[in-house]
Amino acid sequence: MAYVTFPADKPADFVAIGRLCIDLNANEINRPMEETVSFTKYVGGSPANICIGMSRFGMKCDFIGKVADDQMGRFITGYLQRNGIETSHLAVDKTGAVTGLAFTEIKSPTDCSILMYRDNVADLKLQPDEVSESAIAGAKLLLISGTALAQSPSREAVMQALNYAKKHGVVVAFDVDYRPYTWKSAEETAVYYNLAAEKCDIIIGTREEFDMMERFEANPEKDDRITAAKWFDYDAKIVIIKHGKEGSIAYTKDGSSHRARSFPAKVIKTFGAGDSYAAGFLYGLMKGWTIEKSMEFGSAAACIVISSHSCSDAMPTVAQVEDYIARSNRGEITAS
Amino acid sequence: MAYVTFPADKPADFVAIGRLCIDLNANEINRPMEETVSFTKYVGGSPANICIGMSRFGMKCDFIGKVADDQMGRFITGYLQRNGIETSHLAVDKTGAVTGLAFTEIKSPTDCSILMYRDNVADLKLQPDEVSESAIAGAKLLLISGTALAQSPSREAVMQALNYAKKHGVVVAFDVDYRPYTWKSAEETAVYYNLAAEKCDIIIGTREEFDMMERFEANPEKDDRITAAKWFDYDAKIVIIKHGKEGSIAYTKDGSSHRARSFPAKVIKTFGAGDSYAAGFLYGLMKGWTIEKSMEFGSAAACIVISSHSCSDAMPTVAQVEDYIARSNRGEITAS
Amino acid sequence: MAYVTFPADKPADFVAIGRLCIDLNANEINRPMEETVSFTKYVGGSPANICIGMSRFGMKCDFIGKVADDQMGRFITGYLQRNGIETSHLAVDKTGAVTGLAFTEIKSPTDCSILMYRDNVADLKLQPDEVSESAIAGAKLLLISGTALAQSPSREAVMQALNYAKKHGVVVAFDVDYRPYTWKSAEETAVYYNLAAEKCDIIIGTREEFDMMERFEANPEKDDRITAAKWFDYDAKIVIIKHGKEGSIAYTKDGSSHRARSFPAKVIKTFGAGDSYAAGFLYGLMKGWTIEKSMEFGSAAACIVISSHSCSDAMPTVAQVEDYIARSNRGEITAS
Amino acid sequence: MAYVTFPADKPADFVAIGRLCIDLNANEINRPMEETVSFTKYVGGSPANICIGMSRFGMKCDFIGKVADDQMGRFITGYLQRNGIETSHLAVDKTGAVTGLAFTEIKSPTDCSILMYRDNVADLKLQPDEVSESAIAGAKLLLISGTALAQSPSREAVMQALNYAKKHGVVVAFDVDYRPYTWKSAEETAVYYNLAAEKCDIIIGTREEFDMMERFEANPEKDDRITAAKWFDYDAKIVIIKHGKEGSIAYTKDGSSHRARSFPAKVIKTFGAGDSYAAGFLYGLMKGWTIEKSMEFGSAAACIVISSHSCSDAMPTVAQVEDYIARSNRGEITAS
Repeated sequence: MAYVTFPADKPADFVAIGRLCIDLNANEINRPMEETVSFTKYVGGSPANICIGMSRFGMKCDFIGKVADDQMGRFITGYLQRNGIETSHLAVDKTGAVTGLAFTEIKSPTDCSILMYRDNVADLKLQPDEVSESAIAGAKLLLISGTALAQSPSREAVMQALNYAKKHGVVVAFDVDYRPYTWKSAEETAVYYNLAAEKCDIIIGTREEFDMMERFEANPEKDDRITAAKWFDYDAKIVIIKHGKEGSIAYTKDGSSHRARSFPAKVIKTFGAGDSYAAGFLYGLMKGWTIEKSMEFGSAAACIVISSHSCSDAMPTVAQVEDYIARSNRGEITAS
Repeated sequence: MAYVTFPADKPADFVAIGRLCIDLNANEINRPMEETVSFTKYVGGSPANICIGMSRFGMKCDFIGKVADDQMGRFITGYLQRNGIETSHLAVDKTGAVTGLAFTEIKSPTDCSILMYRDNVADLKLQPDEVSESAIAGAKLLLISGTALAQSPSREAVMQALNYAKKHGVVVAFDVDYRPYTWKSAEETAVYYNLAAEKCDIIIGTREEFDMMERFEANPEKDDRITAAKWFDYDAKIVIIKHGKEGSIAYTKDGSSHRARSFPAKVIKTFGAGDSYAAGFLYGLMKGWTIEKSMEFGSAAACIVISSHSCSDAMPTVAQVEDYIARSNRGEITAS
Repeated sequence: MAYVTFPADKPADFVAIGRLCIDLNANEINRPMEETVSFTKYVGGSPANICIGMSRFGMKCDFIGKVADDQMGRFITGYLQRNGIETSHLAVDKTGAVTGLAFTEIKSPTDCSILMYRDNVADLKLQPDEVSESAIAGAKLLLISGTALAQSPSREAVMQALNYAKKHGVVVAFDVDYRPYTWKSAEETAVYYNLAAEKCDIIIGTREEFDMMERFEANPEKDDRITAAKWFDYDAKIVIIKHGKEGSIAYTKDGSSHRARSFPAKVIKTFGAGDSYAAGFLYGLMKGWTIEKSMEFGSAAACIVISSHSCSDAMPTVAQVEDYIARSNRGEITAS
Repeated sequence: MAYVTFPADKPADFVAIGRLCIDLNANEINRPMEETVSFTKYVGGSPANICIGMSRFGMKCDFIGKVADDQMGRFITGYLQRNGIETSHLAVDKTGAVTGLAFTEIKSPTDCSILMYRDNVADLKLQPDEVSESAIAGAKLLLISGTALAQSPSREAVMQALNYAKKHGVVVAFDVDYRPYTWKSAEETAVYYNLAAEKCDIIIGTREEFDMMERFEANPEKDDRITAAKWFDYDAKIVIIKHGKEGSIAYTKDGSSHRARSFPAKVIKTFGAGDSYAAGFLYGLMKGWTIEKSMEFGSAAACIVISSHSCSDAMPTVAQVEDYIARSNRGEITAS
């Protein structure tokens, strides 16, 4: 059964809107950042990573965002282009904004953290009149990401993107992607996450992220079914709630829930797991696979990324994911 | 036919949220403000005026807002109390915010302007967690006003108020009340006006205000019917579009439109006409009157206010409005 | 002995720089502002008041400042012009700034307070390149006022005015006039008050204001002589320290101190006492009078102002001050 | 002849105040940053570099500044400690400020640029009450740097540091170090550079930096002697004006000027030349050398730094500078 039906007559498969930044990954791992001396530069940001992942899977992709008018901004645009992503809908900031940075620290495979630079960043300066209606109208699926809601005018740009998607029958996926930076209060976060989620077909977040969205509501047991049911009263068809090591559960409007098996991995770091999972899952949905198979594909894609040093650069192809699943099935991969 | 059904089992009739400020009306009229020397102080702000009007009509009223911790703030709270309005849901700012001011200038009955003080005002500092869910749950009708959407955190407070109203079956009226102060751009204005209007049962605005809301849409002829039809796809039941001297038209979900006759008045100034009209119209609706009779009652209330020096203080009682209509019917009132 | 020598060859007597605002004086006195209903509008701001006072005394006066581009700003400019003050060096704000307001509350002759509106005010937007070098070069005495140091770019404009005054041999008087509004911290205040005071010939402040300036210094007994001596190591020739009811003391570089007798007055309110005192004292100095006679003249001028409803409008002429002294000498005036 | 006399009875030689940041130097040189993929991390910031240089020369050094409460901040503190610099006067920001970053781009030895991150940086949040009076009182020489004047409260902290230095007889050197970031206008820059320079014994800047300081003055020919003479009317004893490839000239209060020979170098990049020059020159002065010998030592130190990949890390020891001069004298070093 198809829980979500994608429009057939669109020139592009996928368009994402939101954060584009630079990851600076410490070359020396398993130590605190005070002791690292060099960093390697990658394109980052959750929606950028998902978009790169979708493009690696062969989808026709577009990105709506804003980059700084500097070397970092041009590096991002160039990288997206080299990955086959349409970049004509990227605005270039003219106010002196900078590119957001994420310095990663890998103390151990399970103790990772990020040092963010999010002041005066170009991606949050995307204006509603810079959102291309035709780019959204021309795609089957729009992905929005929570960090783009954290500040004006990017917040309004995303809201306007949602209006265009509804108007043109585009499916919308919402990756909650909560980051505390730049939000002013938990209440502000809850209000805008809810306003956005009301208009989305697919909502993906961690249990903690859904808790944030329920700040003004009663769900004392943090019951997934109460959480999911709320959104089915709006536009949602699928709500995925991630429970960390206990795995993810997809709830669907028919009242059923879905789980997929997980795979072993030689983990280097945890960054990028959610982005590759989202790309894999959405790819599966668009291919018409079952929810379970889509989730499994997402899980395997995530395993590949967390076994690598980067996020965006490590996004796998379909063949690589299928190979990972096959090797895992043959017992050739063991956990770290 | 009742286009809007108000819930019966609520302890209060009416709750408003938003701007509370001070009007400083020039005592010397028919001259520029450069030549006025003294001012009289009144409570002002569109939702405050409407709430005072509703209270004068005998409705049980409540106000959700924020006042400065100074003499101006205490004057406002005291005036509302003396007018029988519940003030226990007014928060008091503790950050040093001031009370918004509106100095009025009456050069002639048709040439009036306002000099606004809207920097660092207490009313825009209302936070979502200061919005009383029980105050909204306990009223039949919630009025929101557009100026409260102009800045955070008041913007989020209004959005949360809308959530509470939907949750508890409270009818919502939206007085668009566009004021350019404190808004950053026309696009920002359009985005938030639309997000709010989607959740409202009754929307009241001028043609120009609806034009602002259609910034990202196609309505080249500025056709009222296209404008109204959009909102009937959301929650709206009545959309009133005001065309200045040409009068107002109420559009209803059944496709019909409604007009009411107007009354002559000895106009002193134009301020407050919209607020008294809204109070009169909403009062009529709550009484179960026809749309036409409600509009007529609103028009007569407006005539009384524009024949007076103040706005809030001039809000009439039901008997005064009825008397005005009767005298007008007898030809005892002529235009200025 | 002349402690300060004024340059002889200057076309103007006096130029002031800094705050220009509107006083809104409650018409109903001896009650809290919660109970007042009307206000009368006057030009206000310490340097404006002093400048108006000097002009009433017959001095040729100029003002360097910035007014809002609205009715309040034009009212200020017109009032200065009608008082014979040169206004060609007033810049007009084009950024949407407002005119500072001071609502006065007179609960009793000794219990007065002010409710200030100082957000986004035009006077603090005066830029250093808007300070006329020729206006300063052409005056014998420049008055600066502490409130203009509270924010950029007005802060830099005053510093640049001081540079011009030193370059052209203009005497500088500093009225400390501390107001807590708009300053970010006590440390910031101390730093800029000191930077300005180092370049001034005459410094006038209350004991509390000098305490603020000594935040980073040791004067545990709050000893006036230690306070004054510090400034004599810089450019100061006269330091006046005001001790409220105990009267003012003028310290001079030769080590002597000076006191003047005070006069009885029928006090309505305390506002404006310092400004009229400063005008009277500086006028006396410029006339070549002794410090004692100048202080006495200042005291009598202050008595006239505090016996009146306004500040600027009540600034007396020389004849009025002389008459007040004469009547007081004859025992015709008794305290309230 | 000693143009500057350093106090003898101080426990420390040198204290610097101001910018502490991180340099991220591209590992791949001679290409635009769009094509670089990795960066190496160093401590940076002009006063930090000079302080590290002084410490390498064997001077007892202290630093007054503010670091972020994160891995970058701790890296800076640790590096200073490992270089023998006292760090007990470094405040730690608690407001969520970040560490300033400088990404360097080396397109060619003569085409270098810097991409700065200066929003919300910890070093500019140093408050005047965080400046240790005893740290300044206990040093022979205080170095201030122009970038610390660019914003409050760091601006006031530097002004307060100057007050302490004057009070305790500490010699003050001012490295103008103009960076456009974070300054609001050229006028603002001129005002604060002048206020600081008035209190300094040694002023070091480029011709362009002195032009900025003369924004409100007449020096149409940009005449070094007019520039220097202005400062000798205040506290200055030595004014060094740098003319790029034409070399630097030191002007002294006695009216004489001084030049030193330069050395050949195999230039990798130009960054850090000014900082190593300042360290070398100030070291020479403190050793009681002639101005010419001090300038020569500074020039040789600069040659060593511009032949290296980093700035701070490449700061030489006395032996290394002496060796460079000796080898140069023997003709063993040729220009790149």
